Amino acid sequence: MQETEKIEIMNFDQEGYLADGKAAVEAGKKMAQIADRVADEGYDAVFLMGVGGTWDELMQLEYLMNKFGDKDLEVYLIHAAEWNVMGHKRMTERSVVLTASESGTTPEVLEAVKKLKQMGVRTFAMTKPEGPIGQAVGAENCIRMASNHGAGGCEMGYYLADCFGLRLLNRRGCFPKFDLFIEQTENVWAELLDMRKRFEPKAEEFARKYGLAPYTMFIGSGALWGETILFSMCILEEMQWKRTRYITSHDFFHGTLELLEPGVPVVLFKGEDECRALDNRVEAFLRSGKTGDEDYLIIDTAEYAIPGLDDDFRVIVSPWILSSLVTDRMAAYYETVTKHNLKYRRYYHQFDY
Amino acid sequence: MQETEKIEIMNFDQEGYLADGKAAVEAGKKMAQIADRVADEGYDAVFLMGVGGTWDELMQLEYLMNKFGDKDLEVYLIHAAEWNVMGHKRMTERSVVLTASESGTTPEVLEAVKKLKQMGVRTFAMTKPEGPIGQAVGAENCIRMASNHGAGGCEMGYYLADCFGLRLLNRRGCFPKFDLFIEQTENVWAELLDMRKRFEPKAEEFARKYGLAPYTMFIGSGALWGETILFSMCILEEMQWKRTRYITSHDFFHGTLELLEPGVPVVLFKGEDECRALDNRVEAFLRSGKTGDEDYLIIDTAEYAIPGLDDDFRVIVSPWILSSLVTDRMAAYYETVTKHNLKYRRYYHQFDY
Repeated sequence: MQETEKIEIMNFDQEGYLADGKAAVEAGKKMAQIADRVADEGYDAVFLMGVGGTWDELMQLEYLMNKFGDKDLEVYLIHAAEWNVMGHKRMTERSVVLTASESGTTPEVLEAVKKLKQMGVRTFAMTKPEGPIGQAVGAENCIRMASNHGAGGCEMGYYLADCFGLRLLNRRGCFPKFDLFIEQTENVWAELLDMRKRFEPKAEEFARKYGLAPYTMFIGSGALWGETILFSMCILEEMQWKRTRYITSHDFFHGTLELLEPGVPVVLFKGEDECRALDNRVEAFLRSGKTGDEDYLIIDTAEYAIPGLDDDFRVIVSPWILSSLVTDRMAAYYETVTKHNLKYRRYYHQFDY
Repeated sequence: MQETEKIEIMNFDQEGYLADGKAAVEAGKKMAQIADRVADEGYDAVFLMGVGGTWDELMQLEYLMNKFGDKDLEVYLIHAAEWNVMGHKRMTERSVVLTASESGTTPEVLEAVKKLKQMGVRTFAMTKPEGPIGQAVGAENCIRMASNHGAGGCEMGYYLADCFGLRLLNRRGCFPKFDLFIEQTENVWAELLDMRKRFEPKAEEFARKYGLAPYTMFIGSGALWGETILFSMCILEEMQWKRTRYITSHDFFHGTLELLEPGVPVVLFKGEDECRALDNRVEAFLRSGKTGDEDYLIIDTAEYAIPGLDDDFRVIVSPWILSSLVTDRMAAYYETVTKHNLKYRRYYHQFDY
């Protein structure tokens, strides 16, 4: 790490990030304690509930819990707005819900949380305890999001959610290395800082070349698919008003590939799970020269080592890595090129609808 | 219907379509027989497996089986390419798989079907019996797709899949009106023909106005969500090389709405299930005038009556209606405006990848 230590990260508070990381580790312990409480009480199914970005973020945990969980574990990713009108036939009083809201006010989540409380379903929220959603779930069921600034928000949100879900697995006998995982990731934040430094020139180059492109494609799969949506939709669409197309590595070949032509920027996020085989197929297609489209970038989380981390844990941290590189760094450089402030919105939070 | 009876449908063989409809009803009986066989033998879970368009088409059946099914029914929509690398922890020798392939050769489905056979999992395919996938599942497990031409392909595919899934529900005591449903939809094809005639001017008007737009948004939910993807991806992307953005009515408000601005065509597909409340919210936003975007079209399946059809069955036929209007008619008019033959591909089926 030595050589990159002094490198700046644009518009990024490195000390603040490391302090947030420490706070995340503490908050993670609370998440594991909540999981212990749930495991002690028993449960029939786990529901991960979000909207937009929080739905995207929880998707990796759904993936991980299905990957590492036993056959009898039921875990469902649900969208709060959809659940508000449809419900879910597998939800009972013995179920448990984990949700999140950075603003603490997300109307669809607030509505759902109030209903869940009436139904007597245990509900936990990663949000501000003082916000309406925090108030609705109650202080003992609320965990403050660790990040005080946006930059590390996603991967620290992943960390917290994973502490809950993986601990639940551990208590079922499914993820025996939970303690080792916590131990080995305690200082992961310094590594994620270092990856940011390494990625800085790539982020700048890509944003300069393609930040003004009218349409950009993002491809991902497996544990990275939620983050692929999050970056495309919550960052580039919502915060940059860029037209994007996100597509899974497997469905890319069933329609979307026809959109490739010279001048269409394509970014493939390569992960480290079973679905890497599907990413490889996309990569081979992009590299084949058959599309005439030379404007592709491949971001492979496997190129970002974390010394001392078990191979088994790579799949878990792969979305944290991707989030650090794109949802944080790529977004920052898009802003410098588009001159479009990431905080500006046309409609969202501007008026009721 | 009298007034519209003599109206032409552009590039559409009306007699051929009605003949296909009759064949679909016959094929539907076979699907129900297969469901009876499965119900007699027993099963632990139902897997609906596709890729691209077939995955999209089976999504409505997943929705319906969850909607009408009992709490213990397990039904999973899986993507063949993803299943090939990941498997599914709930699949056993007692499971049953329904898949489809119009070409009969889809490589990912063929690979999956061969594996399923080795695993001893009962697998049924809506495909050509003489194709590789038909051969792999065996003649007794294969149902020929009813449509001889593309125009009615989707809704007849929906019909066949529904005959299987709804019959399975019926045998569990969940969809008691199965026989009535079959009876009342026997002549639905004439109604779907009539709807095409009514929609013809709208399809032409929209395609003329927006067929050359650089980017078009499609919004849907519930039972119509699969068809929303199918039209956007399989028709407009694959067959017309148009840039599209499809988004659910619920997640639209979490990013994608920021893309609305004057000149961006938006199409909202309004359905007839619980999620209509979510569609209504989008409609109100579009009509609010706050976006300055006047270029929206609302296609509401509820405006297309089917005399004599039970209200309970509307949700089932809503994707058939939407498919008739857009995947068939809108596509036909796009072709006349873009001058881009629907059959032409850059890459798909052009070479191996």
